[in-house]
Amino acid sequence: MSIAYYNGKISSISEVSIPLTDRCVFFGDGIYDAAMGRCGRIYLEDEHIERFITNAKRLDIPLQFDKGELRELLYELIRQSGEELFFLYFQLTRYGEVRKHAYAKGERSNLLITVTPLAMPDPSRRLTLVSYPDRRYGYCNIKTLNLLPAVLASSYAEGMGADEAVFHRGNEVTECAHSNISILKGGRLITHPTDTHILPGVTRARLIRICEEMGIAVEERAFTRGELLRSDAALVTSSSKLCLIAKSVDGVILHLRAKGTAVEICERFFNDFMTGTGGK
Amino acid sequence: MSIAYYNGKISSISEVSIPLTDRCVFFGDGIYDAAMGRCGRIYLEDEHIERFITNAKRLDIPLQFDKGELRELLYELIRQSGEELFFLYFQLTRYGEVRKHAYAKGERSNLLITVTPLAMPDPSRRLTLVSYPDRRYGYCNIKTLNLLPAVLASSYAEGMGADEAVFHRGNEVTECAHSNISILKGGRLITHPTDTHILPGVTRARLIRICEEMGIAVEERAFTRGELLRSDAALVTSSSKLCLIAKSVDGVILHLRAKGTAVEICERFFNDFMTGTGGK
Repeated sequence: MSIAYYNGKISSISEVSIPLTDRCVFFGDGIYDAAMGRCGRIYLEDEHIERFITNAKRLDIPLQFDKGELRELLYELIRQSGEELFFLYFQLTRYGEVRKHAYAKGERSNLLITVTPLAMPDPSRRLTLVSYPDRRYGYCNIKTLNLLPAVLASSYAEGMGADEAVFHRGNEVTECAHSNISILKGGRLITHPTDTHILPGVTRARLIRICEEMGIAVEERAFTRGELLRSDAALVTSSSKLCLIAKSVDGVILHLRAKGTAVEICERFFNDFMTGTGGK
Repeated sequence: MSIAYYNGKISSISEVSIPLTDRCVFFGDGIYDAAMGRCGRIYLEDEHIERFITNAKRLDIPLQFDKGELRELLYELIRQSGEELFFLYFQLTRYGEVRKHAYAKGERSNLLITVTPLAMPDPSRRLTLVSYPDRRYGYCNIKTLNLLPAVLASSYAEGMGADEAVFHRGNEVTECAHSNISILKGGRLITHPTDTHILPGVTRARLIRICEEMGIAVEERAFTRGELLRSDAALVTSSSKLCLIAKSVDGVILHLRAKGTAVEICERFFNDFMTGTGGK
């Protein structure tokens, strides 16, 4: 069953009540993380929890718990939800007495957690992509709640009958609306570097390690839309879908020249997830 | 007294309860507007209400009311608050059953309104400014709830003991964290054009009209940080502070060579506000 936690209170999702002192309401002033898991284990647990804490510190949002306490709380909620296959979402937002742009230094913040059932992702699914101009800001590397550009791009993709939107800044591909994108070309993996234009995806980092384990050279550099179209395979990674192969971009079919390698990478992810390995 | 309205229910601000179906919580998926007023009149009422409705349409957020109904509701709340000098804030956010980036087409949205007491702005106050890199995104022209960059810049300004942060993209001044900035130079007003890098401020638009009434030529173009420092006067406009003269930027005193003109502009605003004129 779905379950929610908000500032100490466990309830159903429909019973959660956010007050106006939670600065998510007026400012989107918060950070979040999300992971999937099964059989009581969060997949890539350390990576998600560490990114969450790092992002809170970057935005100077007070943490009222340490890593161990947060982990314990997450597992308690997963246990109470009783879901075998689950999606875990957790967000930390700033507390503020009045609506005022500048935040007051304080001890308080708001912790919201939800655990919901998840359908098992299908590793053989191929994604259709559409392009969308990347008008997002210079904080893409922090997993913040300022998600309007992702909302607009995702809705555009859905309206076009596509699975995901690929952001580009000019001719440069950055990432997708809620996943990272990397390409295989000439036996190498090419993936955008982790600067302020992309989120350092936990699954993207795992993709790099999987490639290294398979002896595939990794090049962290921006690639163009042309390179995406001429790639040997395009891999879309996210915490909720793991790793999937892209089928098309803007209706143009991507030729899967590196099918064997791409399929092996995707399968390694799903094995990781099913066996609970691959994390730190 | 402060008063709040949320989806049909009038209460005190501390009693408002936002459910997780309000997409402000997960995505900042909404727009807002804010105005000040006195003696039961909203200053520049038509301009604020029209911008609000235009912005909702731009983001495809369903409106469950027309302009006249919204105005009536706003005035009813102002009446109930009993505040002579008030700050009015109203936001419209998308409704969503589950947390999913792409939004579902629907009829529902969430309307939040607050009326709070306001201290009378002092037209003779001079502002201290600090510079802050503009890392905001390409939707600055829409008054959205994705306000994290404004939060960070405002908090930086406050930490530096300054009143406002001036955003710059490279060498180009765009606007402030929660106001517009224009300069007087050689008898002309220079102000950033209304592209996707600034919010088309209601007060900025009124400033242009005031200058035209005074026979001051208006140049809508970007200006540099150097031009700001060498200006004859720098004017900061916003819906809650009207028009104020900047005293310094990053600790460098701005020489107020066009003092007479700048003071007259500010005073015209305050007369406008006190007499309830200046709107459409």
